[in-house]
Amino acid sequence: MLPRSYEDQTCSIAGSLALIGDRWTLLVLRDVFLRLSRFDEIQRDLGIARNVLSDRLGRLVSAGVLERRVYQRRPARSEYRLTDKGRDLWPVLVSLLQWGDRYVYGGRPPLVLRHRDCGGELTAWRACAACGAQLGPRDVEARPGPAASPALRAKLAS
Amino acid sequence: MLPRSYEDQTCSIAGSLALIGDRWTLLVLRDVFLRLSRFDEIQRDLGIARNVLSDRLGRLVSAGVLERRVYQRRPARSEYRLTDKGRDLWPVLVSLLQWGDRYVYGGRPPLVLRHRDCGGELTAWRACAACGAQLGPRDVEARPGPAASPALRAKLAS
Repeated sequence: MLPRSYEDQTCSIAGSLALIGDRWTLLVLRDVFLRLSRFDEIQRDLGIARNVLSDRLGRLVSAGVLERRVYQRRPARSEYRLTDKGRDLWPVLVSLLQWGDRYVYGGRPPLVLRHRDCGGELTAWRACAACGAQLGPRDVEARPGPAASPALRAKLAS
Repeated sequence: MLPRSYEDQTCSIAGSLALIGDRWTLLVLRDVFLRLSRFDEIQRDLGIARNVLSDRLGRLVSAGVLERRVYQRRPARSEYRLTDKGRDLWPVLVSLLQWGDRYVYGGRPPLVLRHRDCGGELTAWRACAACGAQLGPRDVEARPGPAASPALRAKLAS
């Protein structure tokens, strides 16, 4: 836990981080944006302990970022969907992705976001590089990039 | 520490978070973007333990996000500046800020970023709401918003 002074800052960045700043949380959200929705899918993808994932998902539901739906009764199984509040976190994930593409992967990204309609790449301004449309999370599809691992290719194909 | 599997993911988001995903780190960067540059200024502003701040600054320098300059010899005192790589993290901080403005502060933000030239507010697409120019970190100034605390007002005035 960060000390209390952290949460006491009058700051929208600190406030956002208090809700979603845990690193596992951001990777859980990444997976939900990539349309993994079931507990077991996310757990397998992240290799995260079940109790940790359960905690993080519970916090995201409490914060109104995800909603839980039971899709099977016996045994009980839930899936998780982004709310509007959650979908509005897309720029946070896109900006982390683009910085990492450039500075961690040297411009050879594992994953590329393309405009569903015309195939243009997503720019740093969240527009389509080909047609110029401003894009949101529903307008893009994730494709393997030059640095995609076999596991990432399999995940994006499924 | 997050388990090793975290760092092993082939993912630009995970890669970015491995470098800057610690919450204190993002608040240190926020302060440097707000032109706090000296160890003691940042330490006072965050109320963070000196050894923790020293560790986080050292990591940011090692990662090439900040550069350290000695501005006084006896006693030795350093200041920290963003490199180009660090300045390129601006979209990450802006997106966290804007989400927090909306969902943590209900649209009454503590701090508002305005286009230096014409005073227009920064949009969600990092453009000026008044003149339409695309903006970067050097094009904006931070002004107190409706939810600014007295401490934040003093910080922005100095």
